[in-house]
Amino acid sequence: MELHLDRSLKTPLYLQIRSQIRQLILSNALPPGFRLPPERKLAVSLGVNRTTIVNAYHELEADGLIQSHVGKGTIVNSHSEHDSISPLIIDSNSGLQHSPVQPMSWQNFYTRQSERMYNPVLASILTEIGEEDQISFALGSPAGEYYPLEEFSRIGHKVMSSGNWLAFEYGPTIGHYPLRQYLAEWLSQRGIQTQAEKVMILSGSQQGLDLLAKIFLEPGDYIVMEEPSFLGAIGVFKAAGARILTVPTDQEGIRTDLMEQILSRHRPKFIYTIPTFQNPSGYKMSLPRRQELLKLAYQYHIPIVEDDPYSELYYEGELSPSLRSLDKHGHVIYLGTFSKILLPGLRLGWCVAPPSVLEHLSLAKQHVDLHTSTTTQWMMTEFCCQGLLNPHLQKVRNHYRIKRDTMVSALTKFAPPGLTWSVPEGGYYLWCELPPGMKASALLTKAAVKKVTFVPGNAFYANSGGTDRIRLCFTRHPEATILEGIRRLCEAITEMLIQTHPEGTINRPRFSEPLS
Amino acid sequence: MELHLDRSLKTPLYLQIRSQIRQLILSNALPPGFRLPPERKLAVSLGVNRTTIVNAYHELEADGLIQSHVGKGTIVNSHSEHDSISPLIIDSNSGLQHSPVQPMSWQNFYTRQSERMYNPVLASILTEIGEEDQISFALGSPAGEYYPLEEFSRIGHKVMSSGNWLAFEYGPTIGHYPLRQYLAEWLSQRGIQTQAEKVMILSGSQQGLDLLAKIFLEPGDYIVMEEPSFLGAIGVFKAAGARILTVPTDQEGIRTDLMEQILSRHRPKFIYTIPTFQNPSGYKMSLPRRQELLKLAYQYHIPIVEDDPYSELYYEGELSPSLRSLDKHGHVIYLGTFSKILLPGLRLGWCVAPPSVLEHLSLAKQHVDLHTSTTTQWMMTEFCCQGLLNPHLQKVRNHYRIKRDTMVSALTKFAPPGLTWSVPEGGYYLWCELPPGMKASALLTKAAVKKVTFVPGNAFYANSGGTDRIRLCFTRHPEATILEGIRRLCEAITEMLIQTHPEGTINRPRFSEPLS
Repeated sequence: MELHLDRSLKTPLYLQIRSQIRQLILSNALPPGFRLPPERKLAVSLGVNRTTIVNAYHELEADGLIQSHVGKGTIVNSHSEHDSISPLIIDSNSGLQHSPVQPMSWQNFYTRQSERMYNPVLASILTEIGEEDQISFALGSPAGEYYPLEEFSRIGHKVMSSGNWLAFEYGPTIGHYPLRQYLAEWLSQRGIQTQAEKVMILSGSQQGLDLLAKIFLEPGDYIVMEEPSFLGAIGVFKAAGARILTVPTDQEGIRTDLMEQILSRHRPKFIYTIPTFQNPSGYKMSLPRRQELLKLAYQYHIPIVEDDPYSELYYEGELSPSLRSLDKHGHVIYLGTFSKILLPGLRLGWCVAPPSVLEHLSLAKQHVDLHTSTTTQWMMTEFCCQGLLNPHLQKVRNHYRIKRDTMVSALTKFAPPGLTWSVPEGGYYLWCELPPGMKASALLTKAAVKKVTFVPGNAFYANSGGTDRIRLCFTRHPEATILEGIRRLCEAITEMLIQTHPEGTINRPRFSEPLS
Repeated sequence: MELHLDRSLKTPLYLQIRSQIRQLILSNALPPGFRLPPERKLAVSLGVNRTTIVNAYHELEADGLIQSHVGKGTIVNSHSEHDSISPLIIDSNSGLQHSPVQPMSWQNFYTRQSERMYNPVLASILTEIGEEDQISFALGSPAGEYYPLEEFSRIGHKVMSSGNWLAFEYGPTIGHYPLRQYLAEWLSQRGIQTQAEKVMILSGSQQGLDLLAKIFLEPGDYIVMEEPSFLGAIGVFKAAGARILTVPTDQEGIRTDLMEQILSRHRPKFIYTIPTFQNPSGYKMSLPRRQELLKLAYQYHIPIVEDDPYSELYYEGELSPSLRSLDKHGHVIYLGTFSKILLPGLRLGWCVAPPSVLEHLSLAKQHVDLHTSTTTQWMMTEFCCQGLLNPHLQKVRNHYRIKRDTMVSALTKFAPPGLTWSVPEGGYYLWCELPPGMKASALLTKAAVKKVTFVPGNAFYANSGGTDRIRLCFTRHPEATILEGIRRLCEAITEMLIQTHPEGTINRPRFSEPLS
């Protein structure tokens, strides 16, 4: 392999090397399977730094032309792997005739964080919206049939009326004051004693998770989460490079008895929890557990991030006090959202936090999006201040209870043996365990054929687990659709059971036992 | 100083040490000025790791009780510095009677990134909105008087009408397809040949900068920017830990002749530029410079981030082709926004990028806010598809040209000698140089008394410089307000000149010379 470097050219040496090896591979002078010289050796023979060769090989690998194999060295790929490579482009219209333009190897530019962001489950849930030929129990969304469209149409007209140009203007990063004020009062009625000054408006509570990651998490930092937990939180914390310590849950919520060892050994940056109608399990943390969790946080000097999208959606039982309302020492950072209790499309959430934390979140948000849409904040303020929020909550609580019961009845009717599920006192989700040996991923493929979908359980496990679990959202569809979707799902499960036991020894279930 | 550690307690050792030293300081057993033992020595005497002492001292310092001084050691603060420290809190209602709760030392939890986010200029610009007793030339905002409120009121009514619940639903991360489609066509008419699939919707173009930082910038990475440049971009890239290499500008834009050395020495992740009606300088990059910049990017294999909020706001001269429209090899990532050409409060921007980059941006955005508000995207789609955008542009171009001329006339009339300014062919800003020796920061204080404000020049310099420059936005206010604001500003400058030369040797200016 002969290469000729021209140090009088402006093109960096590593790009000259890359270009020449590329030519040799595409012209078949270096055939598939050819082993390139080791980096150090080639560096010596060309009289360049080893880094120069490393960079050149890196680019060629990103181009799909070569591949490093541990122990085997760097090998030229087969033609099928680089058939799609575009030839070198010569731009005859510019002054570049004599130095061909290298196509960008974007792979070489991305950060480690970017590589950690791959989250196919979340992406597929969001893109399936509007694919109306299938019944999705995957997306955790409110029922569109109850969105107060008339009210918002009227409010929109008012907010955007003549002269009201401030509704379209830039606004303060921390949020629209009247909305912060409303939320402070509304939360105070729920035991969270706070003031407008301690409430920050977010572009959805997902943004709160991202901002918290920005201000608290260095790569390698520990955090604590219950397992299973919200996949969007797992995603953002993983992307930030956090090491996630998981604590198992039972019907009373996070197993605080198992936490002490974790907290004393590591110094986690925070404990992330969804104490009420947890996503995906639906469990409500008991009051003793809440007190125990706070006690541990005080003792080990660790903040708690309380994510609370569902607590207003209770269908029976007693309302539990939030951790934030029990916290007497300013350890709890509280996240809330309009997405689950009202509608998600305005992208409005909030955070209640100690002043120092709020200040840091606000500085971070300034870089992220300057501020949340003024227009949507004004509309929501109007909705709230007209007293429309609480009646809406009353309404959806009633409807969602019926929907939950509909899904449970449908499961009771159609479920094959071995399928079990939780019946939560509130929130959005049934958390189901598949019959022994059945994998959620395999079921997902089967169910897709029958035009029904769900989130496979492993998406809620930060490390591993949950392959035999699935999450079903019961709030989104009308009752008839819930029935039909559960029928299809159970049909898929039953068919998989029959495939596993082709002799047909499985009978119709006599009963099915819920998890709780 | 006697400390007693109890290893049978659950409280970590560093917190025990902190708690006891704290007690000793607050009880005056360790008086102000007392020098604490060196960390290593105390560690040995207590039989603990040095890290334990470091952590304990760190917490005490965050509490404001002690202070490390290089060469002097660790000293107990004076009473005035810790008078505000709250006494230890005993919570008699919980099981915590015997272990006092330590107040959170949030300082110990924040990331380095968080510390780099402090950006008082941006925060103060955003919070001054609505403070109507002063005339602000600081905020780069369109004129509220031209916001198409009636149109949006009508559109809002239509979008949020009965049955249209999808307008309030979750949506795909990459954006609402009809809006992406409109933008692709609109941009194609401007020479940017693209398709809906290559356009991504952002929650304002500031979000684009944050996402680009996430996918491209590791701490320590180099990027290249023109100097001066947009303060929001400087802020987000600095927060990401980037090392910013600045290139001077002249009337033709970035000095490409000075770039070669920078690009060949470092391998910057990208070149960030605002080629048209640059913020803050107002300069438009000449066509030869644009071509030269692209040539350099190709040669050194470096992406260009083209930030283009202002190019549609041209008041004279020829429209320059964007870098993206000149780019034949997929090196340019293009950012646009509705904030400057229409209104900022909906927080809508866009990005055009190669597929690989768009995919990475989209994965990052998913973690950041799931997606941009569906409702605002639907409203903007309706506005655009009703053909309202281009007539609006025509209208504001006319008005903003008049406003620019008004501000220039006012300066010509009121400016004291030594004050000079640029006259841009488009965009938002006059970039002014103060009389020799005058500092923008001092003028800002003086001007505040006269109820007029601006952005001091140093905010646009990534490293240092610009202390004798100020940026004035001419688009936002009615003409009468512009006149009055410039009168007040020039009065402030004149008074400062007189203070500097108290003999009163300065006469009224005979003429003033603009920078371009």
